[in-house]
Amino acid sequence: MAQKIKVVQCGLGFAGASLIRSMLLKRTVECVGAVDKYNGVGRDVGDVLGLGTETGIRVTDDIDEAVGGSKPDVWIEATQSKIVDIYPRVKKALSSGINVITLAEEFANPWYFEPELTKEIDAIAKKNNVTMVGTGFNPGLWLDVWPFFLSGCVYHIDKIKIQYMSDLSPYGRSPDVVKNYGFGLKPAEIEGSLKNGSDKSSKGTIGIIHNLAGCLGFELSDVRVRVRPLISTVRQDFSPVVVIEPGEIHGSMVDAYGICNGKEIIEIHKGACCKPSLEVPGFGEEPHTEAVIEIVGEPNLKSSLSLKSENGWSTTAPRLLNWIPFIMKAKPGLLTDLRDFPLMGAIY
Amino acid sequence: MAQKIKVVQCGLGFAGASLIRSMLLKRTVECVGAVDKYNGVGRDVGDVLGLGTETGIRVTDDIDEAVGGSKPDVWIEATQSKIVDIYPRVKKALSSGINVITLAEEFANPWYFEPELTKEIDAIAKKNNVTMVGTGFNPGLWLDVWPFFLSGCVYHIDKIKIQYMSDLSPYGRSPDVVKNYGFGLKPAEIEGSLKNGSDKSSKGTIGIIHNLAGCLGFELSDVRVRVRPLISTVRQDFSPVVVIEPGEIHGSMVDAYGICNGKEIIEIHKGACCKPSLEVPGFGEEPHTEAVIEIVGEPNLKSSLSLKSENGWSTTAPRLLNWIPFIMKAKPGLLTDLRDFPLMGAIY
Repeated sequence: MAQKIKVVQCGLGFAGASLIRSMLLKRTVECVGAVDKYNGVGRDVGDVLGLGTETGIRVTDDIDEAVGGSKPDVWIEATQSKIVDIYPRVKKALSSGINVITLAEEFANPWYFEPELTKEIDAIAKKNNVTMVGTGFNPGLWLDVWPFFLSGCVYHIDKIKIQYMSDLSPYGRSPDVVKNYGFGLKPAEIEGSLKNGSDKSSKGTIGIIHNLAGCLGFELSDVRVRVRPLISTVRQDFSPVVVIEPGEIHGSMVDAYGICNGKEIIEIHKGACCKPSLEVPGFGEEPHTEAVIEIVGEPNLKSSLSLKSENGWSTTAPRLLNWIPFIMKAKPGLLTDLRDFPLMGAIY
Repeated sequence: MAQKIKVVQCGLGFAGASLIRSMLLKRTVECVGAVDKYNGVGRDVGDVLGLGTETGIRVTDDIDEAVGGSKPDVWIEATQSKIVDIYPRVKKALSSGINVITLAEEFANPWYFEPELTKEIDAIAKKNNVTMVGTGFNPGLWLDVWPFFLSGCVYHIDKIKIQYMSDLSPYGRSPDVVKNYGFGLKPAEIEGSLKNGSDKSSKGTIGIIHNLAGCLGFELSDVRVRVRPLISTVRQDFSPVVVIEPGEIHGSMVDAYGICNGKEIIEIHKGACCKPSLEVPGFGEEPHTEAVIEIVGEPNLKSSLSLKSENGWSTTAPRLLNWIPFIMKAKPGLLTDLRDFPLMGAIY
């Protein structure tokens, strides 16, 4: 049997924990290290994650030890969203000849967020003959990769329309989510509290539109974005810390348009709220994520995708895991999910 | 501007005609030859296809002239379904240093249908440093590529279930379709007439199950297939040559199961009939193709795809066209859509 690919998991949050659980069941990859600053330093990862079994892998917060210790092939970075925040660890891993895969949001289209740092990371990877891949966090698949995949199935595209809705109700206990989305506030009160969330959502969505347009061969003259609060029409008593009354905010919607030759050629409506069935007809009551892509062109394609799991809604972590065999034979340098993912789109 | 990729289109049937129409609008590819045995030999292809404009490309049935004439980079073979039937042209093109892309059904999984000839074609391509790609005809995308793509978004798969239905009503005038599906016959009468269609459907579907299972890493112990007629409950007066009365056949359904370790891990229900709304709740009245994929695993994914076009329902021809830039830089030899398509699936 071929040797297993050795992986260090950095970040034992929600995604990191599920990645380790999955790796322990795989025949082709092996988790050889676990890194976290906060969770269970010094303890066995099986104990920290409540697996009911010892794994022999001790959680460390010593990056040098994790990089140098077990000669890993791949470093999975599942910690923060921003390139600047994860840069020191990424640099150390790449410089040590370790391939890196990350789900940091900004790495879905790093040239947009940090052009200089991105060039530097690409150079470090090339110099050390290794590869870095940014898969971007959810909705990387939903708003980028899946529409691009479908674009490879048509002759030409007049417009792509994407509607995406995720269910926030399971996050009702998280103070960050409550604050970012302004749960329970009146529309007039959102100035301060919704603003952070709005800015982040709209910048992310602008990045997605530029990225998708570039890959599809559209030259955009303009991107228009609007963030609006979603207002509940019913009382929602869904968590011990949050009650939302009728007329109060229970989420937000980003409406974004990519303009090419005066026409809207990409249209994204990306929503997240506590009770999506109020906003999307037919959306079920169980927490899940749902999206619909329409490609208006020749031929017309319409595709829906919905995801349900007891352990969360993201497809990003599994996609990241499935990248592992590919990164081992990929060309050196910084790749991204959409531009360098082994996938084809429409040609022009 | 980079030089356009030169393409010869062999076969001016439905797919071939739409491929040429699309190529004439592209900036990156150029049609430099048109080959057909029956349609418009000696005439300008613009005239033959009713484009209302001269293209300067004259339809030829002289394969040597087409292969040698305009130094094409790519040969598109969109004629017949069977490997043995297209082999002579494929061999000539590959031997002349031309890459080949085909939608011939058997080329989706050629090792299953013609293992010896497949080895030979692979060797010829490698010897001449060119690539051949089989995309397979519809439902290549629907039953193979799309489920495989989705498999790359989950940690593990317990089962894949695929339901596919295509609308045959636009083919009501075709004697072949009428005969193959047994339109207007009673279930008791199908012995001779449905049999041909059934055999072809079931062999094709067995090929798909083996192909998908192999790519997903499942070792099948058994494949079970059943073909059943679909019986209309209403009078269907949909074409001048066919009337179907209640109780008469209006299509067929292939139910196929791939068994691994005693469990059904792949389940395909592939139907085609004149009035799909009778068979699938919610299926609209306009002719189109619809499918639903469910991945039962971690997480659970459910995706639907529907395709409508005034010019037909297949995604195969556009996908074939979008392969052109990839084949120019692909490794030499025989590739297939699913095994060598730049796409990743679940790892094990």
